[in-house]
Amino acid sequence: MVNQFEGNIENALELINRYDNVFICSHIQPDGDSLGSTLALAMAIGKIKGKDNVNVIKVDNIPSYFLFLPNVDIIKEQDINQEIELFISLDCSDRERLGVGKEFLAKAKSVINIDHHITNENFGDVNIVIPSSGSTCEIVYKLIKCINVEIDKNIASCLYTGINTDTGRFMYSNTTYETHMIVAELIKTGIDINDINMNIYQNMTLERTKLFLESLNKLELYADNRVGIAIVNQEMLDKTNASMEDSEGIVSFVRDINTIEVACLLKEMSESEVKVSLRSKRLVDVAKISTKFGGGGHIRAAGCTIYESLEVAKKMILDEILMSFR
Amino acid sequence: MVNQFEGNIENALELINRYDNVFICSHIQPDGDSLGSTLALAMAIGKIKGKDNVNVIKVDNIPSYFLFLPNVDIIKEQDINQEIELFISLDCSDRERLGVGKEFLAKAKSVINIDHHITNENFGDVNIVIPSSGSTCEIVYKLIKCINVEIDKNIASCLYTGINTDTGRFMYSNTTYETHMIVAELIKTGIDINDINMNIYQNMTLERTKLFLESLNKLELYADNRVGIAIVNQEMLDKTNASMEDSEGIVSFVRDINTIEVACLLKEMSESEVKVSLRSKRLVDVAKISTKFGGGGHIRAAGCTIYESLEVAKKMILDEILMSFR
Repeated sequence: MVNQFEGNIENALELINRYDNVFICSHIQPDGDSLGSTLALAMAIGKIKGKDNVNVIKVDNIPSYFLFLPNVDIIKEQDINQEIELFISLDCSDRERLGVGKEFLAKAKSVINIDHHITNENFGDVNIVIPSSGSTCEIVYKLIKCINVEIDKNIASCLYTGINTDTGRFMYSNTTYETHMIVAELIKTGIDINDINMNIYQNMTLERTKLFLESLNKLELYADNRVGIAIVNQEMLDKTNASMEDSEGIVSFVRDINTIEVACLLKEMSESEVKVSLRSKRLVDVAKISTKFGGGGHIRAAGCTIYESLEVAKKMILDEILMSFR
Repeated sequence: MVNQFEGNIENALELINRYDNVFICSHIQPDGDSLGSTLALAMAIGKIKGKDNVNVIKVDNIPSYFLFLPNVDIIKEQDINQEIELFISLDCSDRERLGVGKEFLAKAKSVINIDHHITNENFGDVNIVIPSSGSTCEIVYKLIKCINVEIDKNIASCLYTGINTDTGRFMYSNTTYETHMIVAELIKTGIDINDINMNIYQNMTLERTKLFLESLNKLELYADNRVGIAIVNQEMLDKTNASMEDSEGIVSFVRDINTIEVACLLKEMSESEVKVSLRSKRLVDVAKISTKFGGGGHIRAAGCTIYESLEVAKKMILDEILMSFR
């Protein structure tokens, strides 16, 4: 494994050195790990190639609580009508999730694919895919070490953000000895971890707070309180002046109730489209449930979309959840 | 500083070696750091002196979500009518907070005082007080290393719990390079960090969940939403079948709203006694506020008791909070 990783790193470095211009891209619905790894690698490569030769492709809106990230404004819409030499995909398991980035990838001369999802489709010319890594940022940390660029405070803040968020604040079992060793090194650069954490976690808008309470006041429990289903419908959004993005955090709150094994959040996107988020604690593989509806994810966190009314979708997903206990 | 620490460690080791029996004690209203450091040190000293010579004094009830800690049942009420040679106080800034343990301390031949609170009164014959340490467990980790006892999984689980909880899950600015280096070493022992975190944080009872929502539904905002006051009164406890202990988590939720600088929770203990918890984000020193009511704490987290009705106490504390903005 180590040898394969080292070999792939060498091949990646060779490609990074070979080309003049680089396009970096991550997945739609960006999170801390996708944004952190993208910005950190862009800054690091910018140090050797010059900033103007590194282009970061914006494929989706960036959640407001990540706008504190250093140099976040280098993530912007890019013109597809230019020469595209090297394309680097980060934290993205397949081409589709790159959104508009997929078109840039198709035009590129070479592709490096760096990820930690076990479902990664190895679509790169060089693939550095390490499922045992808690975050893509940990892999990018090692890559930057190999590029031999100094990890400054800005790069460290981005990497810290990705590692912190993708490990659930160092809580999930993907958090290893190495995770903490890397974070120790990042803290050594002098980053303000308290400020970063306040930006990410102590930053709930009043609208989001109201939506959170509104949704949880109507929490439904099933199967001896082992299943919790929360909903966010359009009426709640109107009433609280919140947006669907503000539903973040509801499903993990439900999971954290001690009787709960499966937590589910149903988001009414329209009269005939419901987005489903699933979390489990110890027993149920929620990826299996979401796959039945064409979705995906991990054993403890997964999602899918059901093209039905909220009521119908709720019944469908609840049936599948209850089946999973059998 | 390093030399002083080393000198004190040496003196502490000398005392530990000198005596046959040891009493270990921490503060009332136990938390992860007090319980974790107590259990870890008791197990470590038990390895060299024999378990029967290490007595851990129970001074208060242990919150249910810490009952998973290895060997937690060695914390028990002890008979004061026996010979007490060495007394070790952990994570406790003064004698009063030891509760009944204070009497054992008074009888002891020698006292070691290990703590990280800046307000520690250095009441030991040997004092190992390191305010720059994020937790007492980090100090105990170093002490155990010096005792030259192997840190096994059980000891590591206890130390991890204390470090994790006292640094707010590695979020507060007391989290250092060294904190993460120590945690990396603890993880190396093979502890199940996911299980530990689930026990601590994904363990909300339904009663606690209901109380949480009940209290937050009545959240009051002042000073352009910079001040949030939540209450838990006896009526809410009756309605939700929860206990006052279940109010844990409410005040930090309020703090995490982005407009909030000062979050306050008022707990109605009786008709004429209100316990106050205060949190701040960036500007206000809440220890200053709580000190005015005879309380104490840190700049970002403090508490006090006001012997008035809930309504009167609310007015009194709100006035002081609003003054602190001037």
